Amino acid sequence: MTHRAFIWPQRVYYQHTDAGGMVFHTRYLDFMECARTEFLASLGFDLGALARRAHVLFVVHSARIDYHKPAQLNDRLTITARVSRIGRVRLEFEQQVRRGEHVLASATLGLACVDARDYKPVALPEAIRKKLQEAS
Amino acid sequence: MTHRAFIWPQRVYYQHTDAGGMVFHTRYLDFMECARTEFLASLGFDLGALARRAHVLFVVHSARIDYHKPAQLNDRLTITARVSRIGRVRLEFEQQVRRGEHVLASATLGLACVDARDYKPVALPEAIRKKLQEAS
Amino acid sequence: MTHRAFIWPQRVYYQHTDAGGMVFHTRYLDFMECARTEFLASLGFDLGALARRAHVLFVVHSARIDYHKPAQLNDRLTITARVSRIGRVRLEFEQQVRRGEHVLASATLGLACVDARDYKPVALPEAIRKKLQEAS
Amino acid sequence: MTHRAFIWPQRVYYQHTDAGGMVFHTRYLDFMECARTEFLASLGFDLGALARRAHVLFVVHSARIDYHKPAQLNDRLTITARVSRIGRVRLEFEQQVRRGEHVLASATLGLACVDARDYKPVALPEAIRKKLQEAS
Repeated sequence: MTHRAFIWPQRVYYQHTDAGGMVFHTRYLDFMECARTEFLASLGFDLGALARRAHVLFVVHSARIDYHKPAQLNDRLTITARVSRIGRVRLEFEQQVRRGEHVLASATLGLACVDARDYKPVALPEAIRKKLQEAS
Repeated sequence: MTHRAFIWPQRVYYQHTDAGGMVFHTRYLDFMECARTEFLASLGFDLGALARRAHVLFVVHSARIDYHKPAQLNDRLTITARVSRIGRVRLEFEQQVRRGEHVLASATLGLACVDARDYKPVALPEAIRKKLQEAS
Repeated sequence: MTHRAFIWPQRVYYQHTDAGGMVFHTRYLDFMECARTEFLASLGFDLGALARRAHVLFVVHSARIDYHKPAQLNDRLTITARVSRIGRVRLEFEQQVRRGEHVLASATLGLACVDARDYKPVALPEAIRKKLQEAS
Repeated sequence: MTHRAFIWPQRVYYQHTDAGGMVFHTRYLDFMECARTEFLASLGFDLGALARRAHVLFVVHSARIDYHKPAQLNDRLTITARVSRIGRVRLEFEQQVRRGEHVLASATLGLACVDARDYKPVALPEAIRKKLQEAS
């Protein structure tokens, strides 16, 4: 079984770069957040509504990222996202930042569902679990 | 004569919001930077190539922004950009952040062309001036 | 009467700079936010507690900033903040970014007090008004 | 032998938080960048001068971070940095974000020295290696 990856385009703007002439290392993780949000949106889930109405937040509890090649100003990148593990409370995503054929960075992100009011762990909403399983 | 405005979509992600529950005020200016870059790209100009090959940077020398209504997580915004003045060295942009019919923020941005090596003012490249005049 | 200005130090890190080799224009406004927060903290006010307990947010409703000279990586800047107007709901700050004797950027920031639950205007808390008047 | 850790204070401002009411996950890595820079500055090294004069950049090639507890608006954090490995080209840092006794996040950052002009690996400058060995 191959996992399909969601793909999201991202152009590099001045605010992503630094005086070294490349994209600053934490921006890749910002790009990955966008791709995860768009992936969930593509499945019909709105993180804003989830937080405000169902009091559910997805929080990142771990990130492992390796940087292979620098991205530069105006590069047109592709950010991928696929769910690699679905637990009761936790999710794992495999993500990449690519420029054409080249993988510039690859990461594993661990997320957990928490209650927006006290940050205590809560089970992943069933509707989301189902959609994620279908998408993975 | 009416000026046409370039339009660029922007979804609000977690990193744009703050603990007050709305988009942090400086992010609107970040969004406007993206829209200006995409506007120039739509005219065929690549800010990265301009900086690296022609040693020309566009720098912001002034910003005036008014915030009318807050944007929130997951809002799908529209960022507009139109050139309102074209000088020898300087450009002025009128920009808005909109959500549907509502104007959430409006700004006037003053930009200047400078040499990437010493930050001294240089004339706006003729090819860009021509395209901007046609587009305005 | 001369207005005393609060002063806050800020070193320029990689994440503040861009591929043009200077500080990205919106970062100066981020620096100014830090200085305003530290100024209020120096008067005994905690923006976090104000938001969570008194449901009061200070929101920026306008910003006018002029950029005079670029700041660069590792510069040790000084950010100033002084209150230039105190209304019932609104406050105005005059702020500068300086490097030694040089003023790199100067700005006027308009802030308003709003209710953290519905973003409706509320009167500036009396204890804060009093302290700000003494400090200005 | 115990490794001494460099310590750097960091207050949480609005721009570090998100609509979930906590510090956005990538900001912890931004805080760690500040602490590493201040650590090097405390040893007499200026990253700006290194880049501009010696054409040496430190780039992050890997980051592993675990988030234990959320930080919130106005928290006064402590960011630690200590060198855990010194190679010919590469350095490893162990870093934490703490609030009082509590460790909110802990990370291992892998850095490499590269030439600022072509991003090719270069040996860690000898003066820096010596100082880092003394400090670790």
